Amino acid sequence: MRQPAPPILPEPTLRRLPWYLAYIDILRAQGTEYVSSTQISRALSVDASQIAKDLSFLGLKGKTRIGYEVCALADALAAFLGFTAEHRACVLGCGSLGKALLRDDGLRNYGLQIVAGYDVNPAVTCRTDLGVPIHHIEDIYNIQETDPVEIAILTVPAEAAQEAADIAIGAGIRAIWNFTPYRVKVAEGIVMTNTSIYAHLALIYNRLAGL
Amino acid sequence: MRQPAPPILPEPTLRRLPWYLAYIDILRAQGTEYVSSTQISRALSVDASQIAKDLSFLGLKGKTRIGYEVCALADALAAFLGFTAEHRACVLGCGSLGKALLRDDGLRNYGLQIVAGYDVNPAVTCRTDLGVPIHHIEDIYNIQETDPVEIAILTVPAEAAQEAADIAIGAGIRAIWNFTPYRVKVAEGIVMTNTSIYAHLALIYNRLAGL
Repeated sequence: MRQPAPPILPEPTLRRLPWYLAYIDILRAQGTEYVSSTQISRALSVDASQIAKDLSFLGLKGKTRIGYEVCALADALAAFLGFTAEHRACVLGCGSLGKALLRDDGLRNYGLQIVAGYDVNPAVTCRTDLGVPIHHIEDIYNIQETDPVEIAILTVPAEAAQEAADIAIGAGIRAIWNFTPYRVKVAEGIVMTNTSIYAHLALIYNRLAGL
Repeated sequence: MRQPAPPILPEPTLRRLPWYLAYIDILRAQGTEYVSSTQISRALSVDASQIAKDLSFLGLKGKTRIGYEVCALADALAAFLGFTAEHRACVLGCGSLGKALLRDDGLRNYGLQIVAGYDVNPAVTCRTDLGVPIHHIEDIYNIQETDPVEIAILTVPAEAAQEAADIAIGAGIRAIWNFTPYRVKVAEGIVMTNTSIYAHLALIYNRLAGL
């Protein structure tokens, strides 16, 4: 499943590329054959020259006056973003949000395969109805030896976030996807990505109050 | 429940304030009485002067040599961020992720009360096991008249994102929390926040491949 490594991309490019893919997938479903960067630009309110620059990272160039072939562009984007490969992950903390993510099989369409959950609560670790086994966090070292994953989705309570991340990294996890509001610190060489849903809530509340 | 409107804050400040709150909540649980901006700074790797500036938006100033009172700061932060008020929301699109968010009662601890779901699939709209009623999207106009909510959580398929958002806004929704990979456009005066989980996945994959 391993592809040749793509270049390290700037974060803003990695934020925009999935927008292009979502839009181009819609065009593909509609049977559209070609799309120009001007057309993408209008649909998504992103500068056309920015789009051309972002897509040049994929080694793709549009044809003059025709643009990009829709199917080829969609396939190239999905592969380039890693959505067509298989990335194994575990969920650390199977409370409310953790269980929700375990059940969200939509993530699988984007290449994420959650194969295990971890928790400290015996009422949770005994559950067999969540689609994957839920282990005690202490077992992560053994399980990572025989059945390793690279990505840990961090959904423990904030006060346990740093410790859980440290344990996971000690057991060989190389990337932490942090959904907790705690700002977890990791050593260099460990990938750390924050999905700050509570900060987004605060943003919504603040902007609503100001309307 | 309505508080006096807080000032419109810069997004980076709104991103950092929940970090402070998460950290200070931990200190409170540990029985710590005072915390200095230097201490917060060390724990979270945020510049101490930045912290003092962010907290000044709340009208809070630390005491010289003592710092901030932990309980008062935690309460002030939670209230200021809107987490102690009640914000009613609906979920548009009760597929995998939508159902997951309906079940995540952790959001309630941050002031978000999801009171309804909407879908177009009769197999979903007839369900009674999701904690809230799931209506057909066409019913949103009537329901918003009698039982309005301000926030719509957008978890429909990407190709339905713009239309669903337009319908919701037409029915009186004032804020869209977009979890789809589609870049939804809204008129001025409508709050739009993107939680780009697929972009975050792409970021993780890209950085892992580069390690």
